[in-house]
Amino acid sequence: MFEIIGERINGLFKDIREAIAARDPKPIEEWAIKQEKAGAAWLDINTGPVADKNEQAEIMAWLVKTAQGVSKLPCCIDSTNPAAIEEGLKVHRGKAMINSTTAEQAKMDIYFPMAAKYNAAIVALAMNEKGVPKSAEDRVALAMELVANADMHGIPMTDLYIDPLVLPVNVAQEHGPESLEALRQMKMLSNPAPKTTVGLSNISQKAPNRPLINRTYLAMAMVCGLDSAIMDADDDDLVDTAATASIILNQSIYCDSYLKIFRQG
Amino acid sequence: MFEIIGERINGLFKDIREAIAARDPKPIEEWAIKQEKAGAAWLDINTGPVADKNEQAEIMAWLVKTAQGVSKLPCCIDSTNPAAIEEGLKVHRGKAMINSTTAEQAKMDIYFPMAAKYNAAIVALAMNEKGVPKSAEDRVALAMELVANADMHGIPMTDLYIDPLVLPVNVAQEHGPESLEALRQMKMLSNPAPKTTVGLSNISQKAPNRPLINRTYLAMAMVCGLDSAIMDADDDDLVDTAATASIILNQSIYCDSYLKIFRQG
Repeated sequence: MFEIIGERINGLFKDIREAIAARDPKPIEEWAIKQEKAGAAWLDINTGPVADKNEQAEIMAWLVKTAQGVSKLPCCIDSTNPAAIEEGLKVHRGKAMINSTTAEQAKMDIYFPMAAKYNAAIVALAMNEKGVPKSAEDRVALAMELVANADMHGIPMTDLYIDPLVLPVNVAQEHGPESLEALRQMKMLSNPAPKTTVGLSNISQKAPNRPLINRTYLAMAMVCGLDSAIMDADDDDLVDTAATASIILNQSIYCDSYLKIFRQG
Repeated sequence: MFEIIGERINGLFKDIREAIAARDPKPIEEWAIKQEKAGAAWLDINTGPVADKNEQAEIMAWLVKTAQGVSKLPCCIDSTNPAAIEEGLKVHRGKAMINSTTAEQAKMDIYFPMAAKYNAAIVALAMNEKGVPKSAEDRVALAMELVANADMHGIPMTDLYIDPLVLPVNVAQEHGPESLEALRQMKMLSNPAPKTTVGLSNISQKAPNRPLINRTYLAMAMVCGLDSAIMDADDDDLVDTAATASIILNQSIYCDSYLKIFRQG
């Protein structure tokens, strides 16, 4: 079953930034409920930029508790600050997801043990200190390192969400087919296969027709083996596309009301 | 470059059926022009059911001449009556397409020589007297027979459009992923690869949300190697999806006005 990771509780959005500044739970709660109703399986939680690392960790814990106070969904705890992620994990109810490690050894050495300790799923980006590889093959090589390191720490493949990294089509067009082919090959790396995810809206950064580009890429990625995406659960056409691709791939049983059923999980 | 084969000049549509009965060129001309403007690369021409085979052949020739009288597009001459196809080919200006042969030897022995004689492209369905295969592998096995027979008659692979056969998702859901995987494998059968096509609207027969299902399948099929589709060129969202998938696959160069450029061919 395809999993939507709802992207909306993120301090980069103005309403969330203001809610964080005022410690106003309302907007957080509203987006938690709205994304759950729209069919999200996870709530991404990101504080946005916060200068003080300790304060960021405290905010992360508050966001997780606030979201889970009104929604049964698990959270995808999204930060570049390991302390903020761990504070989120500490207060999280149920199985969380860490977002994210890369294939840099120093990061894998922090986040895979953390995932193991908290029995959390983890997003792992197919990039390292050299940046995002150009080719599918080089992305898959990094995915192999992620698989090996996750396995070494006892993370089951069903908890590892590898992200092939999607770049904006208007400035890095040659990456499009490479990211899709990388997805396809990543699903053949192990048995059971690792899961996959993408930060979907990257594909359409600064392009006109963003929703069209997002939903077209989503359908294309799903046939290549995409299991989840960090995406706008509030975009009905996008969620409809995910539901329809699931049906076409025979991942859920067709019925005339499949769009509604998909949203009910 | 992805090729749209505009499906609309078909006697199964009421306005075309009536136009044929009255030998009124107007609706044929209007749809020829409309589909060309919408970005079609070919005009499918199908008389619909006609009891008398000779009359059907005469109608086909009239439809081809009428459409090409107002449009520069080549026609995809679509009939189960070989005489009707040949009459269409005789009056056609430029390179035509035959629609279609199957992998039945008796049909291949008629249509491949006809394609060679008229230097026409040809749609070849991955089915035989036993019907449509269930698995991707069996579809690909038939595609191999089509490739071998076409090659024997000197048809270049770039003129062979193999159709993996798309069945309605609401009654034959298990065929969805098989048809997609078949497309992917068919593109690896020879070098250069054969081209591919589908009768797109089959996927959504009698389902609600037909346009949604059509455009989602189209995006998915394009990443698997779909080169063309017999489809509704008058569905703007569908044509937008084809244009966007082309951009994501890096088949045409991105610019902000790519939707418009795509329609100009």
